[in-house]
Amino acid sequence: MNLELSKDYIIALEDALERRDLSAYEELLNEAHPADLAEILDKIDEDYASFFYEAIADHLGAEVLMELDEDLRAKLLEDYTGEEIALELIDNLDSDDAADLINELDISQRREVLENIEDQKQAMDIAGLLVYPEGTAGALMATEMIKVKDHWMVLECVREMRKQAEEVEQVHAIYVVNEDNKLLGTLSLKKLLTTSTRTPISEVYSLKVRSVEVNTEAEEVTNLMQKYDLVVMPVVDPLGHLVGRITIDDVVDFIRDEAKEDYNLASGLTDEVEAGDTIWLITRARLPWLLIGLFGGLLAASVIGRYEGDIGMVPQMAFFIPLIAAMGGNVGVQSSAIIVQGLASQSLGDNSTLSRLLKELGVALVNGLILSLLVIGASLFLGYSMKLALTVSVALFSVIVVAALIGTFVPLALDKYKIDPALATGPFITTLNDIIGLFLYFQIGRLILGL
Amino acid sequence: MNLELSKDYIIALEDALERRDLSAYEELLNEAHPADLAEILDKIDEDYASFFYEAIADHLGAEVLMELDEDLRAKLLEDYTGEEIALELIDNLDSDDAADLINELDISQRREVLENIEDQKQAMDIAGLLVYPEGTAGALMATEMIKVKDHWMVLECVREMRKQAEEVEQVHAIYVVNEDNKLLGTLSLKKLLTTSTRTPISEVYSLKVRSVEVNTEAEEVTNLMQKYDLVVMPVVDPLGHLVGRITIDDVVDFIRDEAKEDYNLASGLTDEVEAGDTIWLITRARLPWLLIGLFGGLLAASVIGRYEGDIGMVPQMAFFIPLIAAMGGNVGVQSSAIIVQGLASQSLGDNSTLSRLLKELGVALVNGLILSLLVIGASLFLGYSMKLALTVSVALFSVIVVAALIGTFVPLALDKYKIDPALATGPFITTLNDIIGLFLYFQIGRLILGL
Repeated sequence: MNLELSKDYIIALEDALERRDLSAYEELLNEAHPADLAEILDKIDEDYASFFYEAIADHLGAEVLMELDEDLRAKLLEDYTGEEIALELIDNLDSDDAADLINELDISQRREVLENIEDQKQAMDIAGLLVYPEGTAGALMATEMIKVKDHWMVLECVREMRKQAEEVEQVHAIYVVNEDNKLLGTLSLKKLLTTSTRTPISEVYSLKVRSVEVNTEAEEVTNLMQKYDLVVMPVVDPLGHLVGRITIDDVVDFIRDEAKEDYNLASGLTDEVEAGDTIWLITRARLPWLLIGLFGGLLAASVIGRYEGDIGMVPQMAFFIPLIAAMGGNVGVQSSAIIVQGLASQSLGDNSTLSRLLKELGVALVNGLILSLLVIGASLFLGYSMKLALTVSVALFSVIVVAALIGTFVPLALDKYKIDPALATGPFITTLNDIIGLFLYFQIGRLILGL
Repeated sequence: MNLELSKDYIIALEDALERRDLSAYEELLNEAHPADLAEILDKIDEDYASFFYEAIADHLGAEVLMELDEDLRAKLLEDYTGEEIALELIDNLDSDDAADLINELDISQRREVLENIEDQKQAMDIAGLLVYPEGTAGALMATEMIKVKDHWMVLECVREMRKQAEEVEQVHAIYVVNEDNKLLGTLSLKKLLTTSTRTPISEVYSLKVRSVEVNTEAEEVTNLMQKYDLVVMPVVDPLGHLVGRITIDDVVDFIRDEAKEDYNLASGLTDEVEAGDTIWLITRARLPWLLIGLFGGLLAASVIGRYEGDIGMVPQMAFFIPLIAAMGGNVGVQSSAIIVQGLASQSLGDNSTLSRLLKELGVALVNGLILSLLVIGASLFLGYSMKLALTVSVALFSVIVVAALIGTFVPLALDKYKIDPALATGPFITTLNDIIGLFLYFQIGRLILGL
């Protein structure tokens, strides 16, 4: 079996469609994973995508749809009425995907969809999931899972599992609850296979079960599942009732998305852009950051402008402008990157902001000392005057220290006010440090060069 | 049950140790997950860590050890002889962890450990895993899994599974192989639960199974498991024989590590540093990049030095040095970030380097046009001369275009020569673009200002 989407496959599919050879066509579709079909749809021309989607809609529509880019999904959904979404799509989705899909619709259509879901319990489950804010365990979880009661026998359990297993795609865990639906523990499949069918479940289940509450942050769920190597994590309400479960595949997607977002912010890219997007989309994602850079550059120009006379007298002062600006930027990004990652992995520990600043100060002092000694040697070697070399060196030291403190403080402050600290990395902190650095440089120049 | 490591827990544990209350102590340890104990060890003082580790070594030593930071693990392993490692540690580990542990030892000790493993089959399995180069499916996989033969009945299968399940921690999948150990398909637990025990396996197993070869790159394994939402992926040798399986928890760790590495490279950090490391370790991780920046700054100084006379005549030229340098850096990082991510997720498609460069050129032209128009307006508004405004504007346009092309080309070129393209982002590309940008700026200044 082919692991990658082959060109041959697409050609064969197109061919079958053109020849209207339904049996060959169905066979090809049966071979393909919804994720493969979604990849085809994402890659081909939009108009042709609608046509292609229509052809597979009856078969795998719902699953393919959930694998698509949000934009394309929205476009394809335009052809559905609320009733069709409920009957043809929602019915074939797990509750978490169904809730995600409904969340992307506009308010009026949401209601229409929910009212048209035939299975009342399913409709209630999905409506329940819509309540949880994005980024919480509740928003990540699905309600499909295998639950057994603690007073059952193993035989009853197997029977019930067979019934429940029909709507659960893959059995990762069996949860044991009491009459009130309170989560008590888990029953391993291994135990189930190795125990006589007449054993009471209460005798064989494990009390060791980690769970999270519905309002736990997604970031924390991710960290816990990674730390304890969990494939599935049960979710309980504040009273301990089992309400859902989060599977590792959703967590993997979350980790990737978060990493991408941080990386994009550090690189000066807003929105999710991919190499395959149109020139205009790519431009739009980059322009805001470049505008910050431009504005910062103009500000820097006016800072330097205040020292126009000094530059007129000692033009060599201008030579080191890029050095000062670049080092301030680099140091600031390094400091904030450490903090951003520490915040994300919750590994900063109980250290207060103050002790964090002190540590960065220590690192900055060491780095600053090494680099300013190097720069004084290099500039003397390159033939600059002692006074200029001293100016550059002292300025560099100050810039490194100040940039490190700003780079540490800004993400911590943003995080305190619930703003994504990753915003602090990238063009923003670089620009800020540029300006402060230049100001320090020229002020120190005035002192040392006696301008 | 507590999800996080509470201070109370540590205090209770210390207390039990001090009082030499073994039963209280054992009970506390039974409550804790190895990952929790590793977290304690990582956080406390090194000397005390050895003492604490000794206390838990008999109990959970091997598992705790594998969760530790590599440095601390190496330190704790110093107290073990090769024989002790084989008998006390390796025996309690899955084959993939065992291979990882042995890989961290020096060559002579490796052999001693392998020779002292009592179970010959286990020793062979582990030795087999040591062959695969890092970053391949073979290096990620473990050999523990549940295999059944296609000619068995379901009853035989359940019996065999009970036997095999003892050494397999969690049953994610049941693989069906033929007499030659060739992977034929999978048997779902659902099917196993819902089929009569006298059914032949050949009638109920699914032929749909995705597998990777031992030499597949880890990156690709990750992408496939994410794309198809797989919890476990079987690994086959080039002849299709089932040799191991990769579980999602290893993939999650891999994704996080890769994302961290890219982010670190983009932020100018070498090595893996964490906010909790010592000042000296943190300094060492940052200094190399700062030295690149310093060197770049000195180069930039000598580039500008060539135009000393020009600056003497038009000191205002110096004002826009930071703007030109910053914009070149920003644009370059944006372009290379897109390419680095595209390469990582293998989403660049079949586009050639040329078409990629052309697209970035398009984006750069649009961005360059918008920004240079803005900058000409802004500088005139701020009262600079028309000629200077024109110089800055034309230079900005050129810098944006050149930086975009360099930002695209460098990571693609690095990737072609099997160097991590993420190296291209961060200080390296910024420094390169700074220098080229400044050169362009002053050359254009000469042309327009007639210096």
